[in-house]
Amino acid sequence: MITLIKDILMQKPDGQEVAVYGWVRTKRETKNLIFIQVNDGSCFASIQLTFDRDKGIDSQTEKELSRITTGASIKATGALVESPASGQAVEVAAKTIFVYGEASGETYPLQKKRHTFEFLRDIAHLRARTNTFGAVARVRNQMAFAVHNFFQEHGFQYVHTPLITASDSEGAGEMFQVTTLDMQEIVRKALKDKADPATFILDYKQDFFERAAYLTVSGQLEIETYATALSRVYTFGPTFRAENSNTTRHLSEFWMIEPEMSFFRLEDNMELAENFIVYLLKWALTHCRADLEFFNAQIKPGLIGTLEHVVKTPFTRITYTEAVKELEKHAAEFEFKPFWGCDLQSEHEKYLTEQVFKGPVIVTDYPKEIKAFYMKQNDDGKTVRAMDVLVPGLGEIIGGSEREDNLAALETRMNELGLDMKNYWWYLDLRRYGSVPHSGFGLGFDRLLLYVTGMANIRDVIPYPRTPKSAEF
Amino acid sequence: MITLIKDILMQKPDGQEVAVYGWVRTKRETKNLIFIQVNDGSCFASIQLTFDRDKGIDSQTEKELSRITTGASIKATGALVESPASGQAVEVAAKTIFVYGEASGETYPLQKKRHTFEFLRDIAHLRARTNTFGAVARVRNQMAFAVHNFFQEHGFQYVHTPLITASDSEGAGEMFQVTTLDMQEIVRKALKDKADPATFILDYKQDFFERAAYLTVSGQLEIETYATALSRVYTFGPTFRAENSNTTRHLSEFWMIEPEMSFFRLEDNMELAENFIVYLLKWALTHCRADLEFFNAQIKPGLIGTLEHVVKTPFTRITYTEAVKELEKHAAEFEFKPFWGCDLQSEHEKYLTEQVFKGPVIVTDYPKEIKAFYMKQNDDGKTVRAMDVLVPGLGEIIGGSEREDNLAALETRMNELGLDMKNYWWYLDLRRYGSVPHSGFGLGFDRLLLYVTGMANIRDVIPYPRTPKSAEF
Repeated sequence: MITLIKDILMQKPDGQEVAVYGWVRTKRETKNLIFIQVNDGSCFASIQLTFDRDKGIDSQTEKELSRITTGASIKATGALVESPASGQAVEVAAKTIFVYGEASGETYPLQKKRHTFEFLRDIAHLRARTNTFGAVARVRNQMAFAVHNFFQEHGFQYVHTPLITASDSEGAGEMFQVTTLDMQEIVRKALKDKADPATFILDYKQDFFERAAYLTVSGQLEIETYATALSRVYTFGPTFRAENSNTTRHLSEFWMIEPEMSFFRLEDNMELAENFIVYLLKWALTHCRADLEFFNAQIKPGLIGTLEHVVKTPFTRITYTEAVKELEKHAAEFEFKPFWGCDLQSEHEKYLTEQVFKGPVIVTDYPKEIKAFYMKQNDDGKTVRAMDVLVPGLGEIIGGSEREDNLAALETRMNELGLDMKNYWWYLDLRRYGSVPHSGFGLGFDRLLLYVTGMANIRDVIPYPRTPKSAEF
Repeated sequence: MITLIKDILMQKPDGQEVAVYGWVRTKRETKNLIFIQVNDGSCFASIQLTFDRDKGIDSQTEKELSRITTGASIKATGALVESPASGQAVEVAAKTIFVYGEASGETYPLQKKRHTFEFLRDIAHLRARTNTFGAVARVRNQMAFAVHNFFQEHGFQYVHTPLITASDSEGAGEMFQVTTLDMQEIVRKALKDKADPATFILDYKQDFFERAAYLTVSGQLEIETYATALSRVYTFGPTFRAENSNTTRHLSEFWMIEPEMSFFRLEDNMELAENFIVYLLKWALTHCRADLEFFNAQIKPGLIGTLEHVVKTPFTRITYTEAVKELEKHAAEFEFKPFWGCDLQSEHEKYLTEQVFKGPVIVTDYPKEIKAFYMKQNDDGKTVRAMDVLVPGLGEIIGGSEREDNLAALETRMNELGLDMKNYWWYLDLRRYGSVPHSGFGLGFDRLLLYVTGMANIRDVIPYPRTPKSAEF
């Protein structure tokens, strides 16, 4: 198999013959020397090819060299030698070069100059060829692999929960509808039939699933069914929200990680969440060092320091009630004044992690009114066994809870909220047959990427962002 | 953290205290002994709790024991000791037991008797608690992890291609539409407006993405964009087909693996595909031994032999033209008579692997008419650099090709097929700027699961199958 540049760069430069495949980043000439930086995306660094006219370059090679501009794809061969240049240990004393494909300096959109991220979003099919987006892609890859490794090491089974669903899992948000109905034909037919506008009902019996179907907003309810069979399970897959939010933190299609553990109480859940975050950040600091150093230097100064701080700082545990008391002491600091019962705002979360505790914080036992129906109710009748994990520099990174495993308590709560029990028959079955205490949480993978890379806009940490009015590529 | 049963079963039975958490599979009593098999899904085996009335059982424990039926969830403690019973090395000399949740013998659907797979599909939320579906879930988990490990070891980057797309990637099949339009309201409004049925056009400017959007049928076109930046990449995610196929091999929502490699020719692609299949099957034979032995004994006799045979048999390479010649010699054997130009049928594929070559076969260079537009054209003007990997007992498991990297050739082919070039501007850009030879393939993860488990129906290897008229749970 072809040797990737990351592996060539690790070799000892003993003058051995190597073949380099990749895309030209830059080419520059001095009198008799031609330097070409080649990158193949396997690592942050490029490798330098050096052609020396004093040593002779044949006419075929000269011809190929003349075709080379930024973006051209090439294969080159030569000897791997120590580099006299600073900032690189090795280079290739190149002998041959072959151009697979040119990249015209007049039309190729990725020239040597800096491009804005906005511009690069419009050419998302090419942006992974830049330093920034190549680094994002590699970190994303490593983080995904870290997720699987963590769970596999801890006895979890990966479960593919369904994307298309007929049930609105948790009333968590607006959903996309999935259909094969020919809507235009349906309108035309209704018009031809002169149907009554007051009583016209769309017939989903004609739809693919013989019912209205949607894209999932969370795999949680389904993953619970597997937790009560396999003990420890997790999903890691796409989820969807049809919210009209145009912010730097929201995507309409994003990747979620949702572990669910039977026999875990809230305390076990917190411990797992803490270990998980620490594991992921350590992994990034170890396996993505060069990419993180780039982000630290070019994108977010202090990034590596923040991540290292979180890794070595025990997570503070605090109840929501305590947190609100603490925040009320500093009410003057906030635009939104905190009070018991309010949802914690981003400014509150930041204040807790950055000013009060100077490190990660897990807030537990939130008012039931601001949390989902399935969370385990405390005896106080007011709070539920929820937890949010907050980290400095981002705020909430994980939300989870112990689940209500008592059938009667769950049904009562669902009735209070007006949920239609018959849509949840199978979810309720988990409390009817061999019910167990169990807990879980959700981590938005794209938000994790924002945190680890220091990138500011969530559209820039996923290859092809889907947001309101935008589904290009 | 709680110790899983798989880890307890690995311990040396030195009489140490253990705590067992899980669900009761069976309970039986002899005079003074009570045997309870407990399973937590972490492995195929259950662990046996033995209560001995001769050694004294307190009244609280007796009360708990009386509540235990198949399906009840429990915690038990006792000493891990050598088991006198055959078929198990260790058991728990149990002292205490606590029932979290009962499972009424009158209503719990999963009683000790055998259930049909059809019945279990109707209670898919509980079926992972059975031997068969627990084993399927564990093998699925291991195979997914093996996929990631293989690619990470080979220098690939995992890329999340988008699920929602505005382009019909490859005309590969019927697509689901994704929308937030309130269809019923649209019909009612058109009726009120007395719109003209002949000219009514649905206005997608009002839809979420301001255009018609669909669920992807393949991530290939998008993954190619990342291959030309990072060299070796793969997707592993859900894909969708809105085909009205009610077979044991089709799902409307299924998981696909699609690697794409720059600088790989068809030969490199074949080598990678062969190594990949062998790696996955070896992984299953090593990491899923107990589950495979169950499938081999109860589901598909000979399964392990077939998998071991594929692992050690070099894959035969043969062109489509040669394959058809071979098949024509045995035309009498087939319902569908083979001829040059025909798509190979399942019966042909099986004949090649099971009768002619007695092992895995890679068929290459198919007629261009039966393959996708993006496949690299051979100089003969008739065939393309496609490959299908066929395995005995299943048929096609992988389909792939070298891609057309020449802009003019690709455009000509797309014109021949009447494809609208402007939908593919970004795909064509890959041939305009730094174009490289590249190749890739697709493997349907659920079909791989069918192969590895020996299960007959693809609905039984995914937790919640989506098929025409069926999207329950």
